[in-house]
Amino acid sequence: MTGLRPILVLNGPNLNMLGVREPHIYGHHTLGDVEDMCRERAAALGVEVTFGQSNYEGELVGMIQQARDGASGIVINPGAYTHTSVAIYDALKLAELPVIEVHLSNPHRREEFRHHSYISLVAEGIVAGFGARSFVMAIEGMVGYLRRQVPAGGPGD
Amino acid sequence: MTGLRPILVLNGPNLNMLGVREPHIYGHHTLGDVEDMCRERAAALGVEVTFGQSNYEGELVGMIQQARDGASGIVINPGAYTHTSVAIYDALKLAELPVIEVHLSNPHRREEFRHHSYISLVAEGIVAGFGARSFVMAIEGMVGYLRRQVPAGGPGD
Amino acid sequence: MTGLRPILVLNGPNLNMLGVREPHIYGHHTLGDVEDMCRERAAALGVEVTFGQSNYEGELVGMIQQARDGASGIVINPGAYTHTSVAIYDALKLAELPVIEVHLSNPHRREEFRHHSYISLVAEGIVAGFGARSFVMAIEGMVGYLRRQVPAGGPGD
Amino acid sequence: MTGLRPILVLNGPNLNMLGVREPHIYGHHTLGDVEDMCRERAAALGVEVTFGQSNYEGELVGMIQQARDGASGIVINPGAYTHTSVAIYDALKLAELPVIEVHLSNPHRREEFRHHSYISLVAEGIVAGFGARSFVMAIEGMVGYLRRQVPAGGPGD
Amino acid sequence: MTGLRPILVLNGPNLNMLGVREPHIYGHHTLGDVEDMCRERAAALGVEVTFGQSNYEGELVGMIQQARDGASGIVINPGAYTHTSVAIYDALKLAELPVIEVHLSNPHRREEFRHHSYISLVAEGIVAGFGARSFVMAIEGMVGYLRRQVPAGGPGD
Amino acid sequence: MTGLRPILVLNGPNLNMLGVREPHIYGHHTLGDVEDMCRERAAALGVEVTFGQSNYEGELVGMIQQARDGASGIVINPGAYTHTSVAIYDALKLAELPVIEVHLSNPHRREEFRHHSYISLVAEGIVAGFGARSFVMAIEGMVGYLRRQVPAGGPGD
Amino acid sequence: MTGLRPILVLNGPNLNMLGVREPHIYGHHTLGDVEDMCRERAAALGVEVTFGQSNYEGELVGMIQQARDGASGIVINPGAYTHTSVAIYDALKLAELPVIEVHLSNPHRREEFRHHSYISLVAEGIVAGFGARSFVMAIEGMVGYLRRQVPAGGPGD
Amino acid sequence: MTGLRPILVLNGPNLNMLGVREPHIYGHHTLGDVEDMCRERAAALGVEVTFGQSNYEGELVGMIQQARDGASGIVINPGAYTHTSVAIYDALKLAELPVIEVHLSNPHRREEFRHHSYISLVAEGIVAGFGARSFVMAIEGMVGYLRRQVPAGGPGD
Amino acid sequence: MTGLRPILVLNGPNLNMLGVREPHIYGHHTLGDVEDMCRERAAALGVEVTFGQSNYEGELVGMIQQARDGASGIVINPGAYTHTSVAIYDALKLAELPVIEVHLSNPHRREEFRHHSYISLVAEGIVAGFGARSFVMAIEGMVGYLRRQVPAGGPGD
Amino acid sequence: MTGLRPILVLNGPNLNMLGVREPHIYGHHTLGDVEDMCRERAAALGVEVTFGQSNYEGELVGMIQQARDGASGIVINPGAYTHTSVAIYDALKLAELPVIEVHLSNPHRREEFRHHSYISLVAEGIVAGFGARSFVMAIEGMVGYLRRQVPAGGPGD
Amino acid sequence: MTGLRPILVLNGPNLNMLGVREPHIYGHHTLGDVEDMCRERAAALGVEVTFGQSNYEGELVGMIQQARDGASGIVINPGAYTHTSVAIYDALKLAELPVIEVHLSNPHRREEFRHHSYISLVAEGIVAGFGARSFVMAIEGMVGYLRRQVPAGGPGD
Amino acid sequence: MTGLRPILVLNGPNLNMLGVREPHIYGHHTLGDVEDMCRERAAALGVEVTFGQSNYEGELVGMIQQARDGASGIVINPGAYTHTSVAIYDALKLAELPVIEVHLSNPHRREEFRHHSYISLVAEGIVAGFGARSFVMAIEGMVGYLRRQVPAGGPGD
Repeated sequence: MTGLRPILVLNGPNLNMLGVREPHIYGHHTLGDVEDMCRERAAALGVEVTFGQSNYEGELVGMIQQARDGASGIVINPGAYTHTSVAIYDALKLAELPVIEVHLSNPHRREEFRHHSYISLVAEGIVAGFGARSFVMAIEGMVGYLRRQVPAGGPGD
Repeated sequence: MTGLRPILVLNGPNLNMLGVREPHIYGHHTLGDVEDMCRERAAALGVEVTFGQSNYEGELVGMIQQARDGASGIVINPGAYTHTSVAIYDALKLAELPVIEVHLSNPHRREEFRHHSYISLVAEGIVAGFGARSFVMAIEGMVGYLRRQVPAGGPGD
Repeated sequence: MTGLRPILVLNGPNLNMLGVREPHIYGHHTLGDVEDMCRERAAALGVEVTFGQSNYEGELVGMIQQARDGASGIVINPGAYTHTSVAIYDALKLAELPVIEVHLSNPHRREEFRHHSYISLVAEGIVAGFGARSFVMAIEGMVGYLRRQVPAGGPGD
Repeated sequence: MTGLRPILVLNGPNLNMLGVREPHIYGHHTLGDVEDMCRERAAALGVEVTFGQSNYEGELVGMIQQARDGASGIVINPGAYTHTSVAIYDALKLAELPVIEVHLSNPHRREEFRHHSYISLVAEGIVAGFGARSFVMAIEGMVGYLRRQVPAGGPGD
Repeated sequence: MTGLRPILVLNGPNLNMLGVREPHIYGHHTLGDVEDMCRERAAALGVEVTFGQSNYEGELVGMIQQARDGASGIVINPGAYTHTSVAIYDALKLAELPVIEVHLSNPHRREEFRHHSYISLVAEGIVAGFGARSFVMAIEGMVGYLRRQVPAGGPGD
Repeated sequence: MTGLRPILVLNGPNLNMLGVREPHIYGHHTLGDVEDMCRERAAALGVEVTFGQSNYEGELVGMIQQARDGASGIVINPGAYTHTSVAIYDALKLAELPVIEVHLSNPHRREEFRHHSYISLVAEGIVAGFGARSFVMAIEGMVGYLRRQVPAGGPGD
Repeated sequence: MTGLRPILVLNGPNLNMLGVREPHIYGHHTLGDVEDMCRERAAALGVEVTFGQSNYEGELVGMIQQARDGASGIVINPGAYTHTSVAIYDALKLAELPVIEVHLSNPHRREEFRHHSYISLVAEGIVAGFGARSFVMAIEGMVGYLRRQVPAGGPGD
Repeated sequence: MTGLRPILVLNGPNLNMLGVREPHIYGHHTLGDVEDMCRERAAALGVEVTFGQSNYEGELVGMIQQARDGASGIVINPGAYTHTSVAIYDALKLAELPVIEVHLSNPHRREEFRHHSYISLVAEGIVAGFGARSFVMAIEGMVGYLRRQVPAGGPGD
Repeated sequence: MTGLRPILVLNGPNLNMLGVREPHIYGHHTLGDVEDMCRERAAALGVEVTFGQSNYEGELVGMIQQARDGASGIVINPGAYTHTSVAIYDALKLAELPVIEVHLSNPHRREEFRHHSYISLVAEGIVAGFGARSFVMAIEGMVGYLRRQVPAGGPGD
Repeated sequence: MTGLRPILVLNGPNLNMLGVREPHIYGHHTLGDVEDMCRERAAALGVEVTFGQSNYEGELVGMIQQARDGASGIVINPGAYTHTSVAIYDALKLAELPVIEVHLSNPHRREEFRHHSYISLVAEGIVAGFGARSFVMAIEGMVGYLRRQVPAGGPGD
Repeated sequence: MTGLRPILVLNGPNLNMLGVREPHIYGHHTLGDVEDMCRERAAALGVEVTFGQSNYEGELVGMIQQARDGASGIVINPGAYTHTSVAIYDALKLAELPVIEVHLSNPHRREEFRHHSYISLVAEGIVAGFGARSFVMAIEGMVGYLRRQVPAGGPGD
Repeated sequence: MTGLRPILVLNGPNLNMLGVREPHIYGHHTLGDVEDMCRERAAALGVEVTFGQSNYEGELVGMIQQARDGASGIVINPGAYTHTSVAIYDALKLAELPVIEVHLSNPHRREEFRHHSYISLVAEGIVAGFGARSFVMAIEGMVGYLRRQVPAGGPGD
């Protein structure tokens, strides 16, 4: 826990509805539950996490800007803005922090227009399709990255 | 460990070269080391893993076909075949097993032709960009999936 | 009027300028006038209407989220966000309410980039090109839909 | 009723099958029923309607040509020709009458090739997705248009 | 022969010219000869066949509509309308009969614009490239299909 | 039977799984059964057939190369390689033998990426959508072709 | 005039409206006037002309089929079918007669979808943009062609 | 001849080679011969013609600029620059003279890249496919245009 | 200064970060500094300037709406919204004020998705690539425009 | 003025026509006037300017090549070659001088094919839409660039 | 010969058929002959060559992987894999050896799908269209490259 | 040397700058040096060479036209015109001489717009990426071609 600033966990539009409705489909995890899971796992790894959610592209941009000085990395599920927001892409680039893109489901199995992600162009890593656990995995991935366990990339992949 | 058949960890073309050359760039992890990391983590989670690697599309198809009866899930880094192989896509669909797609680096930050993946169309989950640790994370994701911790998907994502 | 919750009538960016300027071109109907026309027609049909307008994509998302529990249907003129907002598309899908898309003019007779609509992909019905009366027609269409007068769709169309 | 020539209500290929088969799916409204609904509503509004249907692109062109001198406006559900007929588009332009495009269902929720409409390029207004009632709404919209209630168009939409 | 209504064999534009001209190129089979071959083979299989040909898209639509109540399946060579007719596609869908698409030659070895077929999107089976015998093969395929010999489809194909 | 060398029947990747699994879906026909059906029909027509299957693009290329001197024609279901293999296309061109492309199901009713076939560009004929019987029909088509019954092609098709 | 069969002058959909309406825009030339101009010029050149017009694609196909045995060449203004009709393209190819494509105006200065012509792919020559005189010029061009004055084509053009 | 300034007949790159080589293919007409044919026909019509040819895009631009004050219209065969030169398009627009585009052969029957013409976007009329006579026809068309100024265009074409 | 209302200088998302970080890269100019430069130059030219910045698309729309009555022109650097915002495009059109688009760097030398600008479609002028001085140049350009020094446009450009 | 070599101001095809014709449209500024404005402004800034104009792509290439040794920067309005000339792009790259692209009008409000610029890919800055004053502004921008060498670019733009 | 490891000459699918069939078309050179020509020329230049050919993409990948430690450069004719193999592209990149791409014929004069080459993206040089001699020229080019290491490239090319 | 007319070696725009600048990057070879290398190698092979270079597309067209009667083949590095000049393509086709396309560097490793070559469509052979030596290799290739050593092309390549 020494030396690492908190990890910012950011959620985009409509993620505030998580678990509020139709628990038989999406499960009973609310966004609060997801945040608890993240906090717990982070604590176990000796890192703090802070949280943000907004339906506003502009507010997400602002949260990322503030992260520059207060966070060590950003775990972000940009929701629908994944596919349309150059502004968030720019903010993430300017933040000069490691970014991990998270999705509850696998966007490539959904509508064609979800196959393109501006955020993937700037993210270090991607975790998608594990439901609420995607976030926990991303926290682990981020901590590993920050603690410098092996740079990414390899031959032919 | 009861009831779960082994997880098949599959690597595509050129991944056999991992760590053999230029350790200053890709680190010293060979494919053997990655497999050890997987085996160790799987053991901790009470699951077995088996491994396969091939430069041949046809051999990868065969390995997947055999997994139908012997494995509980497939963790696959299809390397270059990610972008070109309908045959592996077909084999994965026929296998009727959960599939997690893994990449050492984030393909969306590389050449344009790596932005499309046939495998993503059939995968439950995706983990990309964490180097050798991508595999360990995928093992964890697979075990979670197999043990039925929350179905994937959520509102607006 | 028994049993039907109010219909939410939502307007997107720049619609707040309606009728404020250049009445010789767009007529003297302000957004307030349009809302009055809707309210009056709805009353005649025995239904209530509520209204919302915002220039913010995020605020429109929030208004739709709240409609889930308070409205029976959404009549929406998303303005420019028709063509760019996956976030509003997602919110409308999550709302699980019938949606009618409204446009004052016919977007297909305007710039090429107005020919694609994310909202059409999720709307039950579309009314476009009748100026302020488009809204009144949509209210009528919505009430008919809610009162279950014939499911949509037919052979070869 | 004074001064207004009849409105021509035109149906394209396969609409003659409406309601003839599978009433459990499309309802029991035949094309004759739809025409009755139009006639009734038009009468209430003090306007006459005439009808036409053809599976032949060429016959539809001819019906539109004749409308020039006998009708005050055209309500058209061009069925499949919506997406392929430049000839009907040309005939409608030459007719110099207001045109309202009607669809029983919302074409944007169907196959990709139904997302483009030649007719929308020439129509004043569009009504889609309200089943047989789409026609009644279009009659109302046309009468309003002909009686000059507010020109279409507005700021930002 | 018991229980099976006749199979409708339909030919699109310009097929009436078959064998009339340049027998050194296309052979001496006229459309009448092809129909005789079909009738003969069908008789051997205990099924009746009826025939239709038209240069008119609208007339083909009508023939298909009538087949709903009188035929057990449709064997169709839509000629040029293969590539342009949504109306015939719609009629075939509404007919709710099995459809087999036939071509005398292989369209994929001809002009680029013949590589797309609306009819293939709705056909159970395709037979192309066997000249007049394509029809006979399609009759056999249709009878087999109607007599329920194995549903189509298989792994990886 | 005099003079005709055997017909090579070739199957691509994953076709070895035919009928092995989920017989309630694909029927009980294994690849062996299909081959028996072909052999039987060929015998009735006085022709021999030989068989090949491989998951390897390269092995299929080799089998085609060898057919040049030993076979009179090639009936091929290239499976997933239909859509991706220029190498098989080249081998078929070099073989200078008549080729008939076979599919168990109709690829045009499946994913978009199955709508393009390299093999169709070099095939004399195509048979698709008749399940295992597609092969038998192709055998018949090939024998007819080899015995020179009418050249393919016709006016307007 | 000796030896030359008549030239068929064919007009597609909506050309029957020529000059009937808005003479201040299109001039007072009706289709009948155009035909008179053609007849007169042809007579001066010692050739006969016959005429046809239809709004039906199928009827135009039929007229072209009949021209095979009765005409020496076809001058055609296919109107809207220029851009959509493969059937007319096929009929013209089968007719094996020289074809000259005519347009009253220059289609390349109109809507984008008029920039593609199926007919141009089969025409010997094109004359566009000279109003009613386009036909007279095409008659002259056809007679010159038939009397074999210089084959078409040249270096770099 | 009174009042009409000369018509400029302009030829683009490689047209200087016309008739110089392979007379058995392109005929014996040199560019000089073509110019004579034009001069003769123009004289018969009471108009003067002047000529220009260049392989240089820049020189053609200059010739067009000078035509503004000296010519009454431009007949141009831009050769290869038809498909690539925005500069000539600009010069023609600035010249504010009627333009007729000429081609010896029909470019739509040649390579795909010859199907687009910048010049067509600015030309009044097009004559293509009549060999050297295309020029004579264009001269006639131009004179008719200059003398009648019957506006081009008609219904549905 | 007489008669001219102030010029609105508007900045989009992330421009608030200007000069705050990495002065060695972007220089020490903060957004405040840029505004001072604008104010100073405007004063020298006898014009007032007002300023606005927002990360919110909706807020920028609102600022533009208010400019209608208070400003004489808009100088806008829309940042990332340049490439994605139809809403800002609409607001600028409705404002009916001259617009000058400004970029600190040249977007055409950056990522492909920055090569398209909705704002350019509505702007009178563009100034890009001069860093903070782009704004000063745009102020000068705007004042020149407002004082009517020569309308834009010229031959061939 | 010390140390700075002259700035080359280069104009492409048709710019020699500037102001010569239709002064009521484009104003009375000839190219000579524009050059005078540049010279005057440059003198005030203590820099020399030299000028070049050509309708020939090749001559413009040559002028740029010579600028390498004689100029300190290039202000270029490439006219139509903006959109088509890779040769000028190459010459500018080889020149290794700062380049500012100038347009009298805003190309993005003109034809679609003017939205792409090869020159923008190599230019430091762009000034468009200010008529003749675009040049003066570009001179200022160039001098500022040469004197300050403040690098362009900023966060999120 | 001192210091240079052998050059690997690699041939892809179907190249094993070279010269075996139709010597009247492709000449009598077998692959063995080509290898002899290479060996002879290499010997003259004082270099060794080794050879490989495979129809298997995977085997070619393996041969390239082994070349890393045993060869000084790779001359490769990837045949059909030129256009489809990312795996070979990856292997070549990992090999970190100079690569020269060879083709017997010029792929740009063949089918459209042969105009794209993955291999060209990684090759130092390309030699195409000289038949068997392409290989000899490539050997010379490779030796020159290895001995001179004059960097390729020049101004404007 | 008997019987062979000289080979024309042609260079396009900007190649005149070769070696003049930045010898540390492109080496000290000037175009003159390259020509000397060609002359020397040609002499050794018993052939003459002549040279041409121009920045003008039109002048290159002229040089090619003259080669028809004076040269036996053309070795051309069209520089930037490779990607844009249909005029040079036409001239080369008309010349009816063998053409070899040369590039100093490999265009496929440069900007996307350099991946298409009009010249490749007409060239017998291509040599790219060997710097100045590309020319020498092309001379050798041309001489071999002219002396008829094996026609190009082979199986599967």
